[in-house]
Amino acid sequence: MEEVTQFELTKEFLEKFECLLEERDAKSILKSLEGINSADITSLLYEFDTEECIYIVDILEDKVSAEILKDLDDDIRSRFLQEISVSEVARYVEHLDSDDGADLLKQIPLKLQEQVIGMLKSDEKAGYLLDLMQYDEDVAGGLMAKELIKANINWTVSQCIEEIRKQAENVSKIYSVYVVDDLDKLHGKISLKKMLLATDQTKISDIYDLDIVSVETYLEELEVAQIMQKYDLDAIPVVNARGKLVGRITIDDVLDVVTELAEEERQMMSGISSDVEEDDSVWALSKARLPWLFVGIMGGLLGAYFISFYEEDLKVVPMMAFFVPLITATGGNVGIQSSSLVVQSLANRNAFKDSLLSRLVKVLFVAVVNGIILAIIVFGIVILSKSDQNIAMTVSIALFSVVLLASFMGTITPLILDKFGINPALASGPFITTANDLMGLVVYFSVAHALY
Amino acid sequence: MEEVTQFELTKEFLEKFECLLEERDAKSILKSLEGINSADITSLLYEFDTEECIYIVDILEDKVSAEILKDLDDDIRSRFLQEISVSEVARYVEHLDSDDGADLLKQIPLKLQEQVIGMLKSDEKAGYLLDLMQYDEDVAGGLMAKELIKANINWTVSQCIEEIRKQAENVSKIYSVYVVDDLDKLHGKISLKKMLLATDQTKISDIYDLDIVSVETYLEELEVAQIMQKYDLDAIPVVNARGKLVGRITIDDVLDVVTELAEEERQMMSGISSDVEEDDSVWALSKARLPWLFVGIMGGLLGAYFISFYEEDLKVVPMMAFFVPLITATGGNVGIQSSSLVVQSLANRNAFKDSLLSRLVKVLFVAVVNGIILAIIVFGIVILSKSDQNIAMTVSIALFSVVLLASFMGTITPLILDKFGINPALASGPFITTANDLMGLVVYFSVAHALY
Repeated sequence: MEEVTQFELTKEFLEKFECLLEERDAKSILKSLEGINSADITSLLYEFDTEECIYIVDILEDKVSAEILKDLDDDIRSRFLQEISVSEVARYVEHLDSDDGADLLKQIPLKLQEQVIGMLKSDEKAGYLLDLMQYDEDVAGGLMAKELIKANINWTVSQCIEEIRKQAENVSKIYSVYVVDDLDKLHGKISLKKMLLATDQTKISDIYDLDIVSVETYLEELEVAQIMQKYDLDAIPVVNARGKLVGRITIDDVLDVVTELAEEERQMMSGISSDVEEDDSVWALSKARLPWLFVGIMGGLLGAYFISFYEEDLKVVPMMAFFVPLITATGGNVGIQSSSLVVQSLANRNAFKDSLLSRLVKVLFVAVVNGIILAIIVFGIVILSKSDQNIAMTVSIALFSVVLLASFMGTITPLILDKFGINPALASGPFITTANDLMGLVVYFSVAHALY
Repeated sequence: MEEVTQFELTKEFLEKFECLLEERDAKSILKSLEGINSADITSLLYEFDTEECIYIVDILEDKVSAEILKDLDDDIRSRFLQEISVSEVARYVEHLDSDDGADLLKQIPLKLQEQVIGMLKSDEKAGYLLDLMQYDEDVAGGLMAKELIKANINWTVSQCIEEIRKQAENVSKIYSVYVVDDLDKLHGKISLKKMLLATDQTKISDIYDLDIVSVETYLEELEVAQIMQKYDLDAIPVVNARGKLVGRITIDDVLDVVTELAEEERQMMSGISSDVEEDDSVWALSKARLPWLFVGIMGGLLGAYFISFYEEDLKVVPMMAFFVPLITATGGNVGIQSSSLVVQSLANRNAFKDSLLSRLVKVLFVAVVNGIILAIIVFGIVILSKSDQNIAMTVSIALFSVVLLASFMGTITPLILDKFGINPALASGPFITTANDLMGLVVYFSVAHALY
């Protein structure tokens, strides 16, 4: 009896495998990969260069190779696809579900796409792909697969099971069976379980479930994810504007969407401008990090220019300079907190939304509470240590104002970005910190100048 | 024929509903909720206070109420559970899958938990719950449900389908059927599809799938999510240390885990110290935001104390103060970028890890490249505008050093936190900004003092 375990990529295995690969010993390579899941082989490929990967994928069964190609990281896959022939791409696409096949095709030039589709043996799959290629990647149409199981509302359970047996050959996971009429209009669903529990001659129309949630092709992927999560669905049917069933989205694809969106958001919040990982090249990493650092530097230089107006003040009261980092840091922290809360509630589009005004009033209240508490603490500490009432007053007033303004900025910036169709998470990153640094300086030096 | 649409919560509906609720008109309330999915009723409840919610849940069917209770936000549910009787809790738990039932029970005091379990009609469910209560919430055991479908390896397909019909009554979603031996040890799985396609007398042992990935009860939830995502699984069986099948985790629960973890990370990155939402009370929001603001303030005061050592220098060259925000902001930005990349690769535990040394060497390279580019830009701009070579030199050298040091700090902080079992995302928030502000000031004033 074989043991039920996960494959672990050990140093020993890797070293042995490298030797076999160097000798291009196809037979031994295949033997060493026997019984290993394609997802594990994909992880293994990340240890090798494109040429070696192509060799490995080439000697594996087409079905396994297709799975690997599906799982590969976008950038590595893109390099891979450039190196292999059109007929090889067609061979792999043949083994993939239509949604995965379309994702793959979208990575090669238009002309080659057409050649690949022309080479496919199955006309049905070619039709599926042509249909899917027209949708954007980030809407329901771009996520859905054409493979699904449907039953006519006029059938009996036994007719239906017979038909499922036929259709199931091409569908890797069944989930629900969708119930349609003669015009393919979606009417409901029926679970396999329910069919197993019913008698053969029962009519589908008597037992199918009317309560079905579907999405239209143009719905954004985030909303698809939220709907599936809200209604606890494993798969959701996709209909066109006329209610005709055109595809279905499965939950594994939605899980990928959620993971990707979270990563995108993290990158925006940390000021990384393109999708990089720690093991990318030094230059790729530098390039991804420079743009926002540059914005920060420009903000800093503008700040320097602004402070220079107060050069005379600083000569007389150099103590004024001491509290610059306190003010700018607090502005940054408050701004990011505020924008992050707004981004969170924007993402949750199902919730009932308060009006902009009542939102801002509430933000103001929170800011006043926090501003007063922080200002009192700082006033106390400064007066105890410097025993200079003027500077304690200046810093406290400036701090309070900065908390208020930064809260306001942090709240409206993501709302404005969202209005213009820009990802509001951008406002939780260096963008807001830079803006708030400048604002903090203006407030602080104006207050200081006025009080001294 | 009923239309297939999603329910939309309109102002009109809400107003009408509020009237019915005020009159406690149970019959009309039930009528207006007819045909509405329980998930939509849950959204509706957020518009009302606890007492009103209890009324609505009370008049609904137990099955629907149980679903609603399952879907409610943790804090609202907790308030709700405090107000209803033990027997009511038992009635709802009766209708829930064991994993959801256990989540609910964990929110009430231990003594009441035992009372609820004692009141359950089904001994099987009571046993399930007692078993599940022992696991932490964030490991596989805490995520799994006891309800699953299993088949003995010695059965035939027809025996198996018969048994599935029986078991399916208690299992809401089937996915795979797990194949076990007489001791309940997991041997493999078999899909419903495969069974539908096989003849009745085929032996399970001849057609079942040996290639099955399972997890042990103590595995962390993030790792469970990653394994399911990697192998593209809808459900994963959970085994105990002896390989005995004890439960299964379904992908909808994993989707919730991924969403929650992403939200937790966002909060850590934005310095919000507890799970709040924009529509929480002013005081709840203030309280969640104050701790990290306080840390920032303390950092700022420490910075002020540090700058005060250079008061004499500042009197002579007030220009030194101009570039403080530039230096601290760049330190913060670089630190967050670095830590965010480390957090990302820490989260991806499947990947082969480079050694700490090679990691740091790479970080150093990226920092040198970015540091040089930024230093040159700043040197050029400062010298053009101030035509003071000394200050241009000081700022550039300090900037370069800060980029290097902040990269280093941003890289090792999350690694250290992770070693101590603390969520490394903490290092991408105000923590690193505050530390880097201080470090930037030390570097900048030391360089300035030396050069002037």
